[in-house]
Amino acid sequence: MIIIKNGTIVTESESYFSDIMIENNIISCIGANLFNDNAEIIDASGMYVIPGAVDVHTHMDLQAGNNRSIDDFYTGTVAAVCGGTTSIVDHVAFGPRNCALRHQIDKYHELANGKAVIDYGFHGVIQHVNDEVLSEMESLAKEGISSFKIYMTYDFKLDDASILKVLKKAKELGVIIAVHAENNDVINDLRENYVSNGLLETIYHAKSRPDHCEAEAISRVLHLAALAGDAPIYIVHISTEKGLDEIKKARAQGQKNIFAETCTQYLTMTDEKYFEPGNNGLKYVMSPPLRQKSDVDALWKGVQDGEIDVIATDHCSFNFKGDKEKGINDFTKCPNGAPGVAERLMVIFSEGVMEKKISINRCIELLCTKPAKIYGLYPKKGSLNPKSDADVTIINPNLEYTLTRSMLRGAVDYTCFEGIELKGKIDTVIQNGKVVYKNDDFFGKKGDGKFIKRRVMEQ
Amino acid sequence: MIIIKNGTIVTESESYFSDIMIENNIISCIGANLFNDNAEIIDASGMYVIPGAVDVHTHMDLQAGNNRSIDDFYTGTVAAVCGGTTSIVDHVAFGPRNCALRHQIDKYHELANGKAVIDYGFHGVIQHVNDEVLSEMESLAKEGISSFKIYMTYDFKLDDASILKVLKKAKELGVIIAVHAENNDVINDLRENYVSNGLLETIYHAKSRPDHCEAEAISRVLHLAALAGDAPIYIVHISTEKGLDEIKKARAQGQKNIFAETCTQYLTMTDEKYFEPGNNGLKYVMSPPLRQKSDVDALWKGVQDGEIDVIATDHCSFNFKGDKEKGINDFTKCPNGAPGVAERLMVIFSEGVMEKKISINRCIELLCTKPAKIYGLYPKKGSLNPKSDADVTIINPNLEYTLTRSMLRGAVDYTCFEGIELKGKIDTVIQNGKVVYKNDDFFGKKGDGKFIKRRVMEQ
Amino acid sequence: MIIIKNGTIVTESESYFSDIMIENNIISCIGANLFNDNAEIIDASGMYVIPGAVDVHTHMDLQAGNNRSIDDFYTGTVAAVCGGTTSIVDHVAFGPRNCALRHQIDKYHELANGKAVIDYGFHGVIQHVNDEVLSEMESLAKEGISSFKIYMTYDFKLDDASILKVLKKAKELGVIIAVHAENNDVINDLRENYVSNGLLETIYHAKSRPDHCEAEAISRVLHLAALAGDAPIYIVHISTEKGLDEIKKARAQGQKNIFAETCTQYLTMTDEKYFEPGNNGLKYVMSPPLRQKSDVDALWKGVQDGEIDVIATDHCSFNFKGDKEKGINDFTKCPNGAPGVAERLMVIFSEGVMEKKISINRCIELLCTKPAKIYGLYPKKGSLNPKSDADVTIINPNLEYTLTRSMLRGAVDYTCFEGIELKGKIDTVIQNGKVVYKNDDFFGKKGDGKFIKRRVMEQ
Amino acid sequence: MIIIKNGTIVTESESYFSDIMIENNIISCIGANLFNDNAEIIDASGMYVIPGAVDVHTHMDLQAGNNRSIDDFYTGTVAAVCGGTTSIVDHVAFGPRNCALRHQIDKYHELANGKAVIDYGFHGVIQHVNDEVLSEMESLAKEGISSFKIYMTYDFKLDDASILKVLKKAKELGVIIAVHAENNDVINDLRENYVSNGLLETIYHAKSRPDHCEAEAISRVLHLAALAGDAPIYIVHISTEKGLDEIKKARAQGQKNIFAETCTQYLTMTDEKYFEPGNNGLKYVMSPPLRQKSDVDALWKGVQDGEIDVIATDHCSFNFKGDKEKGINDFTKCPNGAPGVAERLMVIFSEGVMEKKISINRCIELLCTKPAKIYGLYPKKGSLNPKSDADVTIINPNLEYTLTRSMLRGAVDYTCFEGIELKGKIDTVIQNGKVVYKNDDFFGKKGDGKFIKRRVMEQ
Repeated sequence: MIIIKNGTIVTESESYFSDIMIENNIISCIGANLFNDNAEIIDASGMYVIPGAVDVHTHMDLQAGNNRSIDDFYTGTVAAVCGGTTSIVDHVAFGPRNCALRHQIDKYHELANGKAVIDYGFHGVIQHVNDEVLSEMESLAKEGISSFKIYMTYDFKLDDASILKVLKKAKELGVIIAVHAENNDVINDLRENYVSNGLLETIYHAKSRPDHCEAEAISRVLHLAALAGDAPIYIVHISTEKGLDEIKKARAQGQKNIFAETCTQYLTMTDEKYFEPGNNGLKYVMSPPLRQKSDVDALWKGVQDGEIDVIATDHCSFNFKGDKEKGINDFTKCPNGAPGVAERLMVIFSEGVMEKKISINRCIELLCTKPAKIYGLYPKKGSLNPKSDADVTIINPNLEYTLTRSMLRGAVDYTCFEGIELKGKIDTVIQNGKVVYKNDDFFGKKGDGKFIKRRVMEQ
Repeated sequence: MIIIKNGTIVTESESYFSDIMIENNIISCIGANLFNDNAEIIDASGMYVIPGAVDVHTHMDLQAGNNRSIDDFYTGTVAAVCGGTTSIVDHVAFGPRNCALRHQIDKYHELANGKAVIDYGFHGVIQHVNDEVLSEMESLAKEGISSFKIYMTYDFKLDDASILKVLKKAKELGVIIAVHAENNDVINDLRENYVSNGLLETIYHAKSRPDHCEAEAISRVLHLAALAGDAPIYIVHISTEKGLDEIKKARAQGQKNIFAETCTQYLTMTDEKYFEPGNNGLKYVMSPPLRQKSDVDALWKGVQDGEIDVIATDHCSFNFKGDKEKGINDFTKCPNGAPGVAERLMVIFSEGVMEKKISINRCIELLCTKPAKIYGLYPKKGSLNPKSDADVTIINPNLEYTLTRSMLRGAVDYTCFEGIELKGKIDTVIQNGKVVYKNDDFFGKKGDGKFIKRRVMEQ
Repeated sequence: MIIIKNGTIVTESESYFSDIMIENNIISCIGANLFNDNAEIIDASGMYVIPGAVDVHTHMDLQAGNNRSIDDFYTGTVAAVCGGTTSIVDHVAFGPRNCALRHQIDKYHELANGKAVIDYGFHGVIQHVNDEVLSEMESLAKEGISSFKIYMTYDFKLDDASILKVLKKAKELGVIIAVHAENNDVINDLRENYVSNGLLETIYHAKSRPDHCEAEAISRVLHLAALAGDAPIYIVHISTEKGLDEIKKARAQGQKNIFAETCTQYLTMTDEKYFEPGNNGLKYVMSPPLRQKSDVDALWKGVQDGEIDVIATDHCSFNFKGDKEKGINDFTKCPNGAPGVAERLMVIFSEGVMEKKISINRCIELLCTKPAKIYGLYPKKGSLNPKSDADVTIINPNLEYTLTRSMLRGAVDYTCFEGIELKGKIDTVIQNGKVVYKNDDFFGKKGDGKFIKRRVMEQ
Repeated sequence: MIIIKNGTIVTESESYFSDIMIENNIISCIGANLFNDNAEIIDASGMYVIPGAVDVHTHMDLQAGNNRSIDDFYTGTVAAVCGGTTSIVDHVAFGPRNCALRHQIDKYHELANGKAVIDYGFHGVIQHVNDEVLSEMESLAKEGISSFKIYMTYDFKLDDASILKVLKKAKELGVIIAVHAENNDVINDLRENYVSNGLLETIYHAKSRPDHCEAEAISRVLHLAALAGDAPIYIVHISTEKGLDEIKKARAQGQKNIFAETCTQYLTMTDEKYFEPGNNGLKYVMSPPLRQKSDVDALWKGVQDGEIDVIATDHCSFNFKGDKEKGINDFTKCPNGAPGVAERLMVIFSEGVMEKKISINRCIELLCTKPAKIYGLYPKKGSLNPKSDADVTIINPNLEYTLTRSMLRGAVDYTCFEGIELKGKIDTVIQNGKVVYKNDDFFGKKGDGKFIKRRVMEQ
C-alpha cells in the first residue's frame, strides 16, 4: 500500500490538493488526509501528481525493410517509463504479403511478452482487404485489439476502395482506424525527380513530402470516413497547417468521430534541422518530415483550441551510428524514424505548460487521458480515479535542467532534443502500484508489463 | 457522515463507478468500497452522482421599476435546490443613482442572509464609473465579490469610455465583468416606432430587440475588452447566432479571457411562444427575447463545440397573474423576466444529455464546473473532489415524467416549460453535507445558505 | 453591314446605350448614333445586346459505350445558336485505348467540319500519360487546342501520378486542365452495393455518387495542382456545396489558377426529379446527378459571390424514347447525360437576372465573357469590342413564355425544363456577322461554323 | 475632335486594341481604324488608354479648427489631373453647429466654382440629425448630392440613434452613407492617457487610434445598416486587418450594400514612418494612422479578392513647414491629413499592376469605374463607352522614374512618396474632350471643372 501525500492532483479538467491511496495495483481512494499504518508514504509536496502518460503511437522492435529499430519492448519501455509514460499502444510492423491480420498480432505478443516493463496494447495493421481480414477485425476487437492502422503510402498502402471497406467495418464494430495519411504518388514523383537530378541531401527528404501531400491524403480519408457513416478515424502525426485545415473543414461540416494526433517533434522543431552540420540532419529523417515555423505555430494553435486531440511520439528509433548514417550521401538510404517516447512528457510539460502555451490540465488531456479514452484504455489508464490502475507520475515543476542523451535510458545513441533547457522534472513513476522510477533510478522489472485488452467505442 | 454508494460519479471530464464519503459538510474521500459503521448510506445504484449545479445568473428579490420579482432568497433558493442547484451567484439590482458600489451589496447581504437555503454569492453592479467606484471594485473583490455586472442598455447603461475604464480595472484585479449586451439606441428607436404605430402585441417586444442589436453590443464590448489587454469578460444570456458569431470572431483573432453564457430558454424555445393564446406569450417576455429556430440551432452547436461556456437561467420571476398581465394591451408594460432556476438542470439533462445532443460530462461542465471555475467558486463548488463542499445532486436517468408547475417549489405561478416531457429525474440533493431533497420532499432549512467569498482569476 | 441601334449594350461590367456597327464579320465600331447608308438596321429598342454566349462544356456526337448522343455538330449547334449561344468548346470523346492525343482531335475535326453552324473548339482528352502524350499537349496547344480534359472516374480515369504529370506540363505550357472530379472507387463500391441489393430505381443513380464523392476528388486534384505550382485547373460541373467548399478552401489558402464551373441543371433542379412518374426521372440521369436544395442554394451563393466562374451545360443529349428508357428497370443501363445547350441562356437569364439573383452583367460574365477568357477564345468571342467577331445575341426582357420541347431545335426528344415559365426571350442572334436567328426562325447554314484556334494563358 | 489611335483600351473587365473618337466633350465612338479628316490624332502606341481616374475622397480647402488645408479647388484639382484623376467627390467640411445640411453644400459650390479644373461633386456632411436634416437629404439628393458623410468621432460625431435614423433615410432614398469609423471614446481615453503621461512623440498619434478602435466602429455601423434594411453604407479609409474582418463577417452573413474603401497610403506604408528623423514622421499624421505590415498585407489581399471596392486618397494637405511642424513636441498639435490626390494612380499602377499584385483591369475598377458606379457618377465618369464624358488618361508603362515633390503640382510642400521608384508614367490626360496634360505640361484652365449631379442607387 502506498499513499501519495500533499501533492496537487491534476486531471484533464481539475487540479486539487488531495492524497491518493494505492492498494493491490489499483488506486483505491482519493481523499483528504488519508492514513494507514501499513502504507509507504510518498511525499509529493510542491509537486504535480498526474496519471501515468499514455503513448499511443510507438514502433518498438520494428523491422522495416533491412532496418530494425534499435529499441525492443524492453529498452523502449524502460525509456518510456523513466519519462513518465506508463502505457503504450504499439503499431505492429508489416508482415509477409497476404498474411492474416492476426499474424503480426501474434508476433508482437511474442516480442512484447516477458520484455515490456509497462503495459502495452497493439494496433493491428491492415495490409490488404478481403472478407477474411474484415472478419478478423471483429475477432481481434474481441481480444482487445480495438484499433487498426492503415497506410496511404509505403508498400502496403490501401486503395480508396479498400479503405472504404475498412472504414465501414470499423463503423460497424466501433473500432478506430488510425491512418498514415500521405499521397503515395506524389512522394514517388517528387522523390524520383530529386534522385534523378542528383538532389540527395537530407533536406530533399522533406521536400519530397510537401504539406499538400499530407493534406490531400487527410482530406481523402476524411471524405471516405464520412461516406462510411462518420466512421471513427484517427489521423496520426499531423505535421502541417494544411493538414490540420482539413480536419477543421470536416468538423465544421459536421463530421463526427474524427481524432487528430500530432507528435512532440512537430511542435518543437522545423526543417532547418536538416541542415545541421556533421550530417546530424539525418537524425530527424522521419515521415512526415519536420516542417516550417508556420506549421509549428498552427499546430500549437490546434493544441490550444482543441482541434488536436493527442500528442504522441511515433517513437521509432535507429542509431545515428551505422543506421541513420546510411543516408549520408543519399537521403533515400536513411531509415525513417526517430526516438521520442522518453522525451515527450518532459518536453511538452516544459514547452507547453511552463511556457504557458497550455494549462497543465490540457497537457494531461493530450498526453494521458484523451489517448486512453480514444483508444479504449480508459478508465484503467489515463485516469486517477478509484479502481483505475495505479499508474502515477509525479512531476517536480521547480527543477530545471539541460537534457542530454546520457539522461535517457533507451537503446538509441541520440536524442532529437539534445541540449534543450527543460523546466520541470519527473520525480517518481509508479507503474501498476510499484515505484519503478525515483531519484533518477529505474526499479522496474523486465516482463512486468501486461497486454492491455482495449475496449471498442460506444456506438 | 454520509456514504453515497454504487453510483456513477460524473465530472466535466470523467464518469466512473465509485463511492463518495461526506464528513463535516465536506467531501472527504472518493474510493472503491468505502465503508464506515457510522455512515448514513445512500444507494445510488443506476444513478448519476454529480456536483450540485451552480447557477451564476439569477435575480432574486429584484426591484425593477415598480415591479418586484416574486421569488425572494428563500423561495428562490428552495426552487433552485429542489432542481438540483446548490449554489447561485445573484446579480444585485440597481440602487439609487450615484450610490456606492457597496450599497447594493450591503442590501443584498440583508436580503439573502437568514433566508437562503443554499450558498450564494453576488455580482456587483456598476451603475456609474468614477475613481471611487473603481476603488470599490478592489475592496469588494477582497471581500469575495470577484465579478461585476455592467449594462449596455437600461437606465444605468455605461458609455464606452466608462466600460473601458471598468475593463482596465478588471484586468488589473483579475475580476470578471459580466455584460448585458444590447444596443440601447436601437431598442429605443424600434420600440418608439412600434409604440407610435400602435403595434403593442407581445411579439413586438421581440421585434424591438433584434439579433443585430445584441450582436452589435457584443462586438463592441469585446473590442473594448481587447483594448483593455484582453480583460476578462463574460457575455450573459447570448440568444442569437449573430451574437455568438461575434464571440467566435474575437476568439479566432486570438483574444483571450472571453466567456460566453446562454440560458435554458434560448436553447429550447422560439419566438413562436409570443403568439400563445390567452396572452400566454407574456410569460416569455424577457430580455433578450426568444429567437428563431436558426438561433436555437446555432446555440446548440456552440454548446457542442465549446464556444458556449455556461448555461445559466437569468431567473427573474414575476407572476403571470397580476404582474405579467400588465402587458396584455401593451408589451412595454410587461415586467421583463421569467423563472428558470428550478427547471434548468432537468431540462438540459433531458434535452441535452438524454436526447444525445451533448455528453453528460459536457452537461456537468456547462451547469456546474465551468461556471464555478469562471466565477471563483471552484474548487469548493462545482466539483466532487476531496475537500470540496459536500454539494451533491443525484439523478435517476431511468424515470420519465411530464413537468408541470405544481412540481416546482418557487413562488411564481407558472413555468415556461409546462407540459414538457422530461427524461431523467432528480432523486436526491445534498447541500453542505445534508440531504435537503429526496423523494420529492424538501428538507432544507431557511437560512442555512451562506455567503460564498469568491476568488479572483489567476493572472 | 449591320447596325444594331437603340439597344442597351451589356458587358460583364457595364450596361450602356449605344449602337454597334458590324462589317465583314467583325464588330467595327461602337458609338452613339452610328449611321451608314448601306447598313441593314436592327432596332433593339428596349432590348439587351449581349455578346453571343459561349458554352465551353458540350458533348456533341458522343459515342459512349454502346450509346451515341443524338445531337451531332449540326443539330447541336442549331439548338445552341437558337438559344443565343454562338460558340462551343466540345469535349472530345474517348478514343481507342492507347491512341494518340491527336487521334480524337482529328476525328472531331471530321465530325464538326461542314456540319457546325457556329464556331467551335475542342478540349483534348487525356486517356493515359506518357512522354508522347505530354509532347502532344504542346503541339496541339500550338494548333489551338489549349485545354485538355482528364477524368478521375470512368474507364480512362487517371491515377494521381499521371494527373500530377499532366498538371506540371499544363503549368509549363499555360494550358488548362479541365477535370471531371468524382472518386471512382466510391462510385463503384456504392453502385455494386445497390445493384447487389436489387436497388435499381433511378434515385440510386444519385445515391451512388454522393456529395463527398465529388468533394474528395476536387480536393485531391486541387492539392495536385498546387503541387504542380498552381497549375491552371478547371473543375467542371460542380454540383455540391461540399465540392464548392473545397474550391473556397484552396483559394483561401492562396492557391491561384483555379476555375470553377457549374451547369444550369445544378442551379435549377433537385434530386426529387428522379421520382417523376412515368420513368421521367431517367431524363435527369447525368453525372454528377441532381442534388439537394441546400446544394442548389450554395451554388447560387457561389454564383453571386464570385466563387463560381462559369455556368455551362454539359450538353450530352440522348432521346428518352429508346435511349434513356434502357434504364427503366436498372439505373445502370441508362446512358448518362442530358440536353441543355439550347436552354442555358434563357433559363439563367430568367432564373438569375429576372428573378434578381444576379445582375445582367454577372450573367454575361458567367455565360459569355469569363468562359471565353479562361479558355482562350477572348477577345474574338465573349466580347462586344471592336475587332471582336460579330457574334451578338439580342434579348427582349419584356416577353414571358412557357418553355416546351417544341420550341427547341436540337434532335433530342425532351427538355429537362419542360413547362418552366421564362421571363425574357431571345429575339435575334447574329453569328459572324450574319443574322442566323430572328422571329423564332433559323437562318443559319450548315457548315458555316469554323474551328476556333484558342490561345494559351499568359504566364 | 480627337482620335486616340493604336492604344490598348483598358476597362475594369477588358483590354483591347481600338481607337477612340472624341467629339463635343463626349466619347462618340470606339472602333477599329477610326478616321476623320478634322481630327487631332493622339498616338497611343504601346500605351494604356484608361478612363480618367475618379477620387471619391478628397478634402479641398478644408477648414479644420485653426488649420486650413493648403490645397484649394484650383491647386488641388491641378494636382489631381496631372496625376491622371479627372473627377473628384469632395467631403465638405463641418459647418457651424446646427447649420442646415445645405449650408456647407452652398459654401462648397462657392469654393469650387470658377476654380476647379476638373469636374467635382460633394458628399454632404451630417453634423446632427432631426427632421429638417432628414428632409434636406431628400432635396439635396435631387440636386445631385447623392451621398452623405457621417463621423463616429470628432466634434460632430453622431450617436447610434442618429446614425440609425440617417441610415433608414438613406435606404429610402437610395443615397449612400460614407462613414468615418473610429470609436471616439477609445481615442479620447488613450490620448488622454498618453498626454497625461507625457508621451507626446509622433508615434503616440498612432497608438491612440489602435486597430480595435477602427474595427469596433465598423462593426457597429454595419450592424446599424443591417437594422436599417441593409442601407447602403460605405466605410472610408479602412486601414486595418481587423477592420476589414468586420466587412467580411457582415458580407458572409449576407448583408448587402456594403462598400469598402482603403487609401494609397494604407497599402504602401507602415507606422515605422512615424520614426523618420527630422520630425518627418509628422508628414504621415493622419486619421486613421499608418499601421503594421500585417495590416498592409491584409489590405492588399482584400484588394485582390474583391473585399475592397475602392482605393481613394483622403487627400487633405497641410504644409510640413508651419503646419505639420506644430506637432513637433506634441502630436496632438499636428493637423491631421496628408496629400495624395496627385500620387494615387501612379503609385497604385506601379505597386499594384507593374508589381503584379493586381491586373490592370482590377486597377481601373478600383480607381476609376467602381467609385464612379458606387457614387452615381457612372456612366458619365469612370467609363470609356460612347456617350461617356471624354475623360481619358493615357499611361506609358515603359517609363520608370523616381518620384519627387518637384514633379507634382499641388500647393503642398512634400509628398509622402518622396523617392519612391515608379514603373509607368502618365503620358496624357484629356478632361472633357480637351488635352489638359501632356509631356509633363499642364494645359487646363481654372474654372473649367463643373459640378457633377450624381445619381442615387437603383433600389
